[in-house]
Amino acid sequence: MEVNEIPGGVTAALGFHAAGVHAGIKKSKKPDVAIIFSEVPAQVGGVFTQNRVKAAPVLFSQKVVAKGTAQAIVVNSGNANACTGRTGEETAGLMAIWAAEELGIKKEHVVVSSTGVIGQQLPRDIIKTGIKKAAANLSREGGNDAARAILTTDKFSKEIAIQAEFGDALITVGGICKGSGMIHPNMATMLAFITTDASVEAPVLQQTIKNAADKTFNMVTVDGDTSTNDMAIILANGKAGNPSINEKSPFLSQFQKMVDYVCMKLAKMLAMDGEGASKLLEVQVNNALSEQDARKAAKAVASSSLVKSAVFGEDANWGRILCAVGYSGANIDPETVEIWLESAAGREKVAELGTGLEFNEENAKKILQEKEIKIIIDLHQGKEGATAWGCDLTYDYVKINADYRT
Amino acid sequence: MEVNEIPGGVTAALGFHAAGVHAGIKKSKKPDVAIIFSEVPAQVGGVFTQNRVKAAPVLFSQKVVAKGTAQAIVVNSGNANACTGRTGEETAGLMAIWAAEELGIKKEHVVVSSTGVIGQQLPRDIIKTGIKKAAANLSREGGNDAARAILTTDKFSKEIAIQAEFGDALITVGGICKGSGMIHPNMATMLAFITTDASVEAPVLQQTIKNAADKTFNMVTVDGDTSTNDMAIILANGKAGNPSINEKSPFLSQFQKMVDYVCMKLAKMLAMDGEGASKLLEVQVNNALSEQDARKAAKAVASSSLVKSAVFGEDANWGRILCAVGYSGANIDPETVEIWLESAAGREKVAELGTGLEFNEENAKKILQEKEIKIIIDLHQGKEGATAWGCDLTYDYVKINADYRT
Repeated sequence: MEVNEIPGGVTAALGFHAAGVHAGIKKSKKPDVAIIFSEVPAQVGGVFTQNRVKAAPVLFSQKVVAKGTAQAIVVNSGNANACTGRTGEETAGLMAIWAAEELGIKKEHVVVSSTGVIGQQLPRDIIKTGIKKAAANLSREGGNDAARAILTTDKFSKEIAIQAEFGDALITVGGICKGSGMIHPNMATMLAFITTDASVEAPVLQQTIKNAADKTFNMVTVDGDTSTNDMAIILANGKAGNPSINEKSPFLSQFQKMVDYVCMKLAKMLAMDGEGASKLLEVQVNNALSEQDARKAAKAVASSSLVKSAVFGEDANWGRILCAVGYSGANIDPETVEIWLESAAGREKVAELGTGLEFNEENAKKILQEKEIKIIIDLHQGKEGATAWGCDLTYDYVKINADYRT
Repeated sequence: MEVNEIPGGVTAALGFHAAGVHAGIKKSKKPDVAIIFSEVPAQVGGVFTQNRVKAAPVLFSQKVVAKGTAQAIVVNSGNANACTGRTGEETAGLMAIWAAEELGIKKEHVVVSSTGVIGQQLPRDIIKTGIKKAAANLSREGGNDAARAILTTDKFSKEIAIQAEFGDALITVGGICKGSGMIHPNMATMLAFITTDASVEAPVLQQTIKNAADKTFNMVTVDGDTSTNDMAIILANGKAGNPSINEKSPFLSQFQKMVDYVCMKLAKMLAMDGEGASKLLEVQVNNALSEQDARKAAKAVASSSLVKSAVFGEDANWGRILCAVGYSGANIDPETVEIWLESAAGREKVAELGTGLEFNEENAKKILQEKEIKIIIDLHQGKEGATAWGCDLTYDYVKINADYRT
């Protein structure tokens, strides 16, 4: 499949408009309310946090997604509307009503999403004004504004769009996301909004976003905390005019690949922008007995505070990598594990048969001095693989999180 | 039961001698080889790391413990003898042989233990000389020397001893441990050596140390990494002359309490001395449906990088606490959770019914400024409880771990 990256992010696909505005939820002047709008009702799919403590907008939006149709997503940053009781639930419902009124659509077709501080009520007057302002600012070029309005401690906005031909139809898939802290496998404080002009049946769309999230967002870890607010939502409005993709469609696998690609690119941006991160860490586990084993091992290594600290210190401490594989819960034989370090500067095998090698320390150091580091672990046990993404653990992570609330 | 704390640590109990000497495994002048010796063969019990990657001394000592009798423990710090293949396994065996020769005991009665850097061969000539020197230095007052010789990045040595009367007999239980980094539930880089002059049957002794470890060492978390080298070993040499404790002994529960007490005190010292820690964090979960649920919730909160960073920043961010309870896997109802902060400066309820309260920020700040912070979580679901210990996440943690190996 030939995939072309194009600009436009979440508004790259036909029929999508977006806006991001400053309403005043954040103390700074940064944008904090976003709306993503489809000209026509779209099929919707979504995956949500597995935390037992679910924020009000998560509870609200799960019901919208379950019905399969949505036309707009309204998002605020600066306040998570989590642990806010009945009042918070009412606020989430009001956000949908206000957005529906401004956009002239059904309130049942509005997905609501929030991110930010937990446990404080979202000020209704501010969010109402913000929604009005965002609705008035919607445009076909608003993707980047929306991308910026959903950020919290993120250092940069995250967006991507790609195109591919499905027979006669030109299909676009685009997306934005926010992450930074609390990113961990199984949907952590991570919001991702994907749009496509493909026509896709709702159950297939749901399965597609779930598959993609399992391989991408759920394989990103920053600090091991799983948030109350995460969601990844996909809207498919059919504007591209392709024959609707169902389970038997010849384009189903191609569509899955496109969504995977968009989610993978966003996931890597999430990891790169982990709180305080100075390096992107990619952990690739090969030749595991099962995909589950490969995922467990990759996630354990990418999550290890000791590995992450060593990557920050550019120290080829392969023992910590092997140790994390050992406690990951993956079915492994310690005596067959092989470990490589790799980056733009080269590659070096640092361990094999579960034991350290007399490797070239200078080369290893050079590899670790790069911004993007890959740890490749060959388990020599089976044929399955998985990749996890993370970042190094730095002084800045501690600084950012020591006093976030006040 | 009346328990008296006494000095002497691991040599407080009758018939135990110890030494800690500098052999040269560590680059510094600090002691790095310890021997703990019983005048007579003792019953032995022990628990070991659950990491699939087990260091050579762990594999060796598991076999010794399985046979139920030991007379000496030889320990080195500075090198973990982990991921060192067959050569490392031979070195562990040689350590037992050399110690047995110097002490005039059976090599099958020697427990071997190592801690430090992973993946480098332990220099045999140095360890051999160290064992000789330690054996020559054994004394009834050597407990503290041994306590210091097993440390790695620890800031202080950890020892405790207590006495209680079992009928006519005066029973002493003492212990030392080392911890610092990589401390996590289920035996993380943690060595603990407990000695007692009680007479206890081996299977009972094994069950006693397992019970104690589950409630104490396995509830301590510093960074979530589980090491390759952990062990907690108990020797009982019967020198106190009590009728041997078996399953039906009226003193069994009293003995369990003494071992629990020693392990709990050592566990708290471990947490307090977590790498880079500036505060001790105690997380108490009450009224859970099961003890398992209580443990899961307590460990998740004590392990959360976000909670730990907030404690470092003295920020009453209860939302992160509730969030960690939510993803802990414990069976909870988010809407009944109540959270208190407590320290020597007072206590403050910060959340109830799963929602934040308008609490006294000034009081909360004062509570969090103390060195020992308690988070009390009432789940209002059942009757079971558990406590976990941890520490805050600081700049120093990152500093210590960014370049430990080189």
